Amino acid sequence: MNPFWSAVVHGLTPYVPGEQPRLANLVKLNTNENPYGPSPRVLDAVRAEAADTLRLYPDPNSDRLRAGIAAYHGLTADQVFVGNGSDEVLAHAFLALLEHELPILFPDITYSFYPVYCRLYEIAYRQIPLTESFEISVDDYLTPNGGVIFPNPNAPTGRLLALVEIEQLLAGNPDSVVVIDEAYIDFGGESAVSLVARYPQLLVIRTLSKSHALAGLRVGYAVGQAHLIEALNRVKDSFNSYPLDRLAQAGALASIEDHAHFEALCAKVVASRTRLVVAMAEIGFEVLPSAANFIFARHPAHDGAELAASLRERSIIVRHFKSPARIAPFLRITIGTDAQCDALLAVLKAIVAC
Amino acid sequence: MNPFWSAVVHGLTPYVPGEQPRLANLVKLNTNENPYGPSPRVLDAVRAEAADTLRLYPDPNSDRLRAGIAAYHGLTADQVFVGNGSDEVLAHAFLALLEHELPILFPDITYSFYPVYCRLYEIAYRQIPLTESFEISVDDYLTPNGGVIFPNPNAPTGRLLALVEIEQLLAGNPDSVVVIDEAYIDFGGESAVSLVARYPQLLVIRTLSKSHALAGLRVGYAVGQAHLIEALNRVKDSFNSYPLDRLAQAGALASIEDHAHFEALCAKVVASRTRLVVAMAEIGFEVLPSAANFIFARHPAHDGAELAASLRERSIIVRHFKSPARIAPFLRITIGTDAQCDALLAVLKAIVAC
Repeated sequence: MNPFWSAVVHGLTPYVPGEQPRLANLVKLNTNENPYGPSPRVLDAVRAEAADTLRLYPDPNSDRLRAGIAAYHGLTADQVFVGNGSDEVLAHAFLALLEHELPILFPDITYSFYPVYCRLYEIAYRQIPLTESFEISVDDYLTPNGGVIFPNPNAPTGRLLALVEIEQLLAGNPDSVVVIDEAYIDFGGESAVSLVARYPQLLVIRTLSKSHALAGLRVGYAVGQAHLIEALNRVKDSFNSYPLDRLAQAGALASIEDHAHFEALCAKVVASRTRLVVAMAEIGFEVLPSAANFIFARHPAHDGAELAASLRERSIIVRHFKSPARIAPFLRITIGTDAQCDALLAVLKAIVAC
Repeated sequence: MNPFWSAVVHGLTPYVPGEQPRLANLVKLNTNENPYGPSPRVLDAVRAEAADTLRLYPDPNSDRLRAGIAAYHGLTADQVFVGNGSDEVLAHAFLALLEHELPILFPDITYSFYPVYCRLYEIAYRQIPLTESFEISVDDYLTPNGGVIFPNPNAPTGRLLALVEIEQLLAGNPDSVVVIDEAYIDFGGESAVSLVARYPQLLVIRTLSKSHALAGLRVGYAVGQAHLIEALNRVKDSFNSYPLDRLAQAGALASIEDHAHFEALCAKVVASRTRLVVAMAEIGFEVLPSAANFIFARHPAHDGAELAASLRERSIIVRHFKSPARIAPFLRITIGTDAQCDALLAVLKAIVAC
């Protein structure tokens, strides 16, 4: 016990992000980055903002960026909240909207940052097991709760919940906040943003890290009715008034405005995913149906940790989760370029042929 | 009461940052920005980082930047924590190090974000009145407490506490964390960083917003012994693993490495401050001794709010605080270029001559 630490610090179990090694010639398929670069308009916007004006504070409310996001989704700016990556937006959502008397609910297999936020803010939670086929069953969430949160598609499974099921969840949960974390939705799902107008308890969180190929810029956002956004703003303005620097605001706006670019990236990733899934099945892997820019796969004859280690020896890194035990046989593999997928397949073929 | 909001949200009184109007020809002396631009090396570093690699996550630990800051201060990297502006660093410090059984102590007239953090994290606090001459008296802080925090020089007064007094405070407070917020120290004070090796309870927080002319880049940092930095890292990794985007990490490192540039900026600002203080005194203003890049001044015959409003009509904006009552007569005026100071003086002369 360090006497200088606040009590809460001793009980924290921080999130461990996927590693970011600085090795050349690595096939990096471990953190769900986009294999293609962002829009050239983003780079132009950032370079234009690299000027003497960096001496001035950024717009604390990111008005232009929020207006751009609102226009993209057909919403108004007061229905949009922006933050320093969707992780910051999630953190504020936990503190602002998910601390109530009853425990909040999320899947037992999901984004591993959720229980970390709960410990930070001392929020009670209950983890709901995914079904045998690693799916979210909406019925399991129709029970009194302090809030519901999950990614759609879910991570690390990649499995999608249909919009009609999200709507059933909302209809059955009129009194608690439902957060849908759509980090991967652009790779194959139907967004719940269309439900915002009808459900006052719905908050949808998105990021530019994946589909916009901007993990390095740190921009995420939330959309919901204005009264939910106000709660996020109250927390944000009690934490850090200026979450997005000038460069990030300018770059993110340029990316949102260049629909064509990021939609084309998503189409390429989806085509590579389809191709990879077929090839993995041919060499005996079981691959969960994925609507994301990654797949979750296991081989009946090979241990997950050993597979990950063997790949690593050949400079291919994927993500492996030791727990819960049910997912230990799996690898989470980011969809790379076709060339990267081929490099992965060549190594996997050699391993399974042994 | 909004039923979807967490209980804590209803009690928040968010911080209100100085306005960032988008008007041309404004003499903007309200948010303590540097009137000169950042190092050209910063702009080059940012432009070089505006590349396809933005698709990749940044280094979550900002290793190169922390090493650069450590080298600048003669410390090791594990004694350095970086964040998205010093406001984020302060927020994490409040949660990680300042929540104990006893109330924390800070001045009644100080950075107005401190009580906001306390409400966010439900930390008890006691405000210690500044002396008649708006100074911090160290003796007032030699009483049982859960921690001590203040800016040095203090804001919005600009008054400096000598390093020998900081050391008396540390010697008399061996059991609680003492946070010295050195946002303005480069404009005329002696840093407490030199005391880090000897005092395990000392955390010094700094920012690149002011002396480095990088308010738009959002980079702040804390230095202290490794055990204090570990507490900050535990909170950071329970909140947002990637607080600094790739552009901010690259730009900040370039700025830290270009000592000569920011030291020259500080010297120019200090020279303008000296000149402005003399000229203000000549037209009857009482100006507190300032070691910062702003002055705090009142005129015996003029109301503070009215002065601020009159300046605003002439497109000069300064900051005025309505409360506490003792500072209502004052204006906080950022040191601009000599030309900006002259514009300010011309208007003030006209007003006081009426």
